[in-house]
Amino acid sequence: MEFWGVEVKPNESLVVEVKDFKLLHISQVALGEVKNGKKVENIPVKININEKKFVVGTLSSERAPQIIFDLVFEQDLELSHGWKDGSVYFCGYIADNPIDDEYPLFIFYILFY
Amino acid sequence: MEFWGVEVKPNESLVVEVKDFKLLHISQVALGEVKNGKKVENIPVKININEKKFVVGTLSSERAPQIIFDLVFEQDLELSHGWKDGSVYFCGYIADNPIDDEYPLFIFYILFY
Amino acid sequence: MEFWGVEVKPNESLVVEVKDFKLLHISQVALGEVKNGKKVENIPVKININEKKFVVGTLSSERAPQIIFDLVFEQDLELSHGWKDGSVYFCGYIADNPIDDEYPLFIFYILFY
Amino acid sequence: MEFWGVEVKPNESLVVEVKDFKLLHISQVALGEVKNGKKVENIPVKININEKKFVVGTLSSERAPQIIFDLVFEQDLELSHGWKDGSVYFCGYIADNPIDDEYPLFIFYILFY
Amino acid sequence: MEFWGVEVKPNESLVVEVKDFKLLHISQVALGEVKNGKKVENIPVKININEKKFVVGTLSSERAPQIIFDLVFEQDLELSHGWKDGSVYFCGYIADNPIDDEYPLFIFYILFY
Repeated sequence: MEFWGVEVKPNESLVVEVKDFKLLHISQVALGEVKNGKKVENIPVKININEKKFVVGTLSSERAPQIIFDLVFEQDLELSHGWKDGSVYFCGYIADNPIDDEYPLFIFYILFY
Repeated sequence: MEFWGVEVKPNESLVVEVKDFKLLHISQVALGEVKNGKKVENIPVKININEKKFVVGTLSSERAPQIIFDLVFEQDLELSHGWKDGSVYFCGYIADNPIDDEYPLFIFYILFY
Repeated sequence: MEFWGVEVKPNESLVVEVKDFKLLHISQVALGEVKNGKKVENIPVKININEKKFVVGTLSSERAPQIIFDLVFEQDLELSHGWKDGSVYFCGYIADNPIDDEYPLFIFYILFY
Repeated sequence: MEFWGVEVKPNESLVVEVKDFKLLHISQVALGEVKNGKKVENIPVKININEKKFVVGTLSSERAPQIIFDLVFEQDLELSHGWKDGSVYFCGYIADNPIDDEYPLFIFYILFY
Repeated sequence: MEFWGVEVKPNESLVVEVKDFKLLHISQVALGEVKNGKKVENIPVKININEKKFVVGTLSSERAPQIIFDLVFEQDLELSHGWKDGSVYFCGYIADNPIDDEYPLFIFYILFY
């Protein structure tokens, strides 16, 4: 397991590649530092995967400057947000993709027969 | 493990099938993008399973545009919500359904005796 | 693992039985649908176990229509709440109770000696 | 795994003992029932461990009547809070402390050589 | 697994070392006790890792005196915050870094061939 984090800049989207046999856990998203006490409201956070778009949350400096997730991805995805004046930070970790239930049996099979 | 997500459109419900030996984890639900800064209030989110209805949360654009869950389903279920003007997004992941405690013992048994 | 959910009706409590070698995870509690936009405030949620009472949260239609938990129970418990006009829904899942650390060693012992 | 819960009474602190090879997970803390609709504000929740004090959260009847944690303790600790008029409830569970990575190898070693 | 916690004092940053084969889970951050009922607003919490800075959350005495995380680190990091008048407490736990999928196979290989 290792830390993973990206900054998605204003008016940009970011494609994230997930390697084979790996799993990306996105565990949170947070607004960057808000300057001058300006309010930031209703920033949608979106994920594109398999050519489908999902709204996964809405950030606001007063009510929800960060959101906790428990999202996992085994394939590439695209992150975007609607904040025109600042960056949004996604953090989480990369782990091995747990193998199927059938796999250990197969290993025993080739070892003992 | 793999990403899972669905969009449930306004005034619709969605039946989700869970395959044998699989487990669906629903880890969050979020309001879609709210247009024109209009407030969306007290949208109940419901799950039907085994012909029983459960209210699992209430979405509001100001107070709770998304809710975190830790729900697991090993059988089919039906998702619905009460927002007449927009979609609600459910996300999570599909994993193998962990086998029973007794299962590994059985494997050892057939291998060594 | 399998889905678990109960509805606790107003002015009632509910005894939940947990089978031997099983573990009940309660992962959330939510107010049922609130009718007529009426506010529901400061509804205590209580769990009785081993003849001890625990307040595990307080529900309010405006501030906290649902609460996330990570509670586990290996024995019977009693659920109750203080909402006189509606139901409260508890959801979670049932899993096997993980066996003790010493157990696998014992298995190896009887297999190889 | 088994349920764990304690009530910490007003103006008291509570020493919690964690047994060898066990792990205490504290997964939440909640204000007890608030009488007469009185507001309770800014109650600090503190944990003392190894003669160090940690503020782990702040409870308020209106804004945060409960807080979710993911804290684990393998040694004794002391719980306290600042509410002079009521009890605070800590809940969680006790599990085995996962053994080190090196341990299974050692077992294989003594079995096969 | 063992408890981990640090206090980061005002106007200071703290370098945290993570040992080889260990994983640091930071599961929450909380404002220290606020004196005199003074409001503390919009305190950014930052993590520096690999010479990149991540804003991981924003603390406020009224709205978010603590934030829950699910962050993991297998390498050194630097913690800082923007509260000039008080300490911020980070808590979590240290666990073994799960070994790669390929590792158990290797063990079987050297044992049986």
